[in-house]
Amino acid sequence: MGIQNLTEKDLISALRKGFPARSPDVVLGIGDDAAVVKIGNSQVLLTKDLLIEDHHFKTVYHPPALLGRKCLNVNLSDIAAMGGRPRFALLGLGIPVKTDPRWGDEFLKGLKAAAREASVQLVGGDVSEAKKITISVSIVGTTKSFFRRDGARPGDRIFVSGSLGNAKYGFLLLKEGMRLGEDRKMDVFINSFLDPIPRLALGQELARSNVPSAMIDISDGLSVDLQHICYESHCGAEIYSHNLPVSPVLKQKKRHYHDLALHGGEDYELLFTIPPDRLNRIARLQKKFDMTEIGCIKKETGIFLIDAQNLRKKLKIKGFQHFKI
Amino acid sequence: MGIQNLTEKDLISALRKGFPARSPDVVLGIGDDAAVVKIGNSQVLLTKDLLIEDHHFKTVYHPPALLGRKCLNVNLSDIAAMGGRPRFALLGLGIPVKTDPRWGDEFLKGLKAAAREASVQLVGGDVSEAKKITISVSIVGTTKSFFRRDGARPGDRIFVSGSLGNAKYGFLLLKEGMRLGEDRKMDVFINSFLDPIPRLALGQELARSNVPSAMIDISDGLSVDLQHICYESHCGAEIYSHNLPVSPVLKQKKRHYHDLALHGGEDYELLFTIPPDRLNRIARLQKKFDMTEIGCIKKETGIFLIDAQNLRKKLKIKGFQHFKI
Repeated sequence: MGIQNLTEKDLISALRKGFPARSPDVVLGIGDDAAVVKIGNSQVLLTKDLLIEDHHFKTVYHPPALLGRKCLNVNLSDIAAMGGRPRFALLGLGIPVKTDPRWGDEFLKGLKAAAREASVQLVGGDVSEAKKITISVSIVGTTKSFFRRDGARPGDRIFVSGSLGNAKYGFLLLKEGMRLGEDRKMDVFINSFLDPIPRLALGQELARSNVPSAMIDISDGLSVDLQHICYESHCGAEIYSHNLPVSPVLKQKKRHYHDLALHGGEDYELLFTIPPDRLNRIARLQKKFDMTEIGCIKKETGIFLIDAQNLRKKLKIKGFQHFKI
Repeated sequence: MGIQNLTEKDLISALRKGFPARSPDVVLGIGDDAAVVKIGNSQVLLTKDLLIEDHHFKTVYHPPALLGRKCLNVNLSDIAAMGGRPRFALLGLGIPVKTDPRWGDEFLKGLKAAAREASVQLVGGDVSEAKKITISVSIVGTTKSFFRRDGARPGDRIFVSGSLGNAKYGFLLLKEGMRLGEDRKMDVFINSFLDPIPRLALGQELARSNVPSAMIDISDGLSVDLQHICYESHCGAEIYSHNLPVSPVLKQKKRHYHDLALHGGEDYELLFTIPPDRLNRIARLQKKFDMTEIGCIKKETGIFLIDAQNLRKKLKIKGFQHFKI
């Protein structure tokens, strides 16, 4: 298949080329937040995420119960981004023999709690020995309608749920040595990184109202994930930097808070676009959910930042790297 | 959940206790070859296997194209053991940065060929950096009826497909330094280990005829997998050692070929039990598929070997360890 480099991007591109969606049962194949397939009369969502020790997490700062939650919740975030309802989960767990059994206990407790919160049934999986803790969760969900990354059109408004940059700031605090519970005001940031919450209710509400033209979850950072929407939709975007939802504490603590909000990653908020003629239909949702209009889809490719003085500059986008201590 | 040791057995037992099948949508939860869930009007099979470098395979002897095939086929073997039809696959792939891109190319080619052979659509997954090559495949299948491990009853006859011990013998040949192509007569054994074939057609045929009372695939060895059936079915078994299907070449080459057949593992053949009043219904299947009657389910727990002289001795069962060079 002619892979040049074994980077994530090249491998995914090789997979898309090598495994095109050929059967009518495959509604949406490789390349979106989740695959959509037809089984009987149901539309089924399938997604999978790998979490590997020292690449996606470190045991020194990630309490096992929160890791148990996170490995499920990052997958549920993909289901949320499709507007779906998660139903069943499979767990693949590779674990070094020397691991403390209490680690396993706490990990499963966290996983169980997160599964209960989302009404997901863990129904199977595989357990194995491994050098590094290796977690692979797959989710099966269902949905009547769903959102793709390629539906955005020039003129559509760009919205994001929650606040941006919290997870990366929490990661930086952990890196500086702070731990959960040391400074209550800071726990919200550390928790954003260690224990992200999938926006399932918002995703499902958006699916019911059928308002967005495109949606994605922010796992790699606003800039990278907006670029995914733009690339798939063959368009560009303008972001109003003064509108980015950033916590007042983060603004106060970090001079470069815009960088965290734009490129931070791991926020697991929803990023979606709404055609102008459907804007009147989201007033009700805005009362119920925390969401902010942050920009507009443009015909011209590239992502541009507009500041409070109306100055426009092109955003440089770095590829996302998982945070490493 | 009170895990004592982080062994496969203890973790699976903790998962079964911690995640009981509570919803009516879960027909069969943790503990069989695949989970069975209801989605709409369909009965859906879900299964997942982890393959981790240096635990399940080594790159020095496993050509990437055959590994690409195997990571799919060992999962398809679980679907075969349920009598199901595989439909969709997800691939999780963790890969070290230094890996040769040609490795990725060959791996995907093998995966693609195996998917085509089984009419499975790869629809998504996740790609990540990792220290060791880490492969997690999940399969979604469908089936009208399915086979569990817990349906065997005293008097049922025990059958196995194909030949036993080939994969372990192939592994031993690799360990001695032999490689594919060096001795054509030996390739069948090395291929059994590097490139096992899932018995999908037989599994589906058995499902159509609805003859077996219990079924499992032999991944951990005849003794361990028969023990799974016996444990879940609250019974024991007698095995006629002279009836074990062993290749003439293996018999000639290895004095202890019975050990390989009983405990070898990784054969990915189907092991199933048939009630005596349904035996007349498998004559047609026996013409089409290679299968052998090897024993009988007994009320008394434990697995006993009966030799050609009618001597009976209790079989000692060691836990299965993946082959390591």
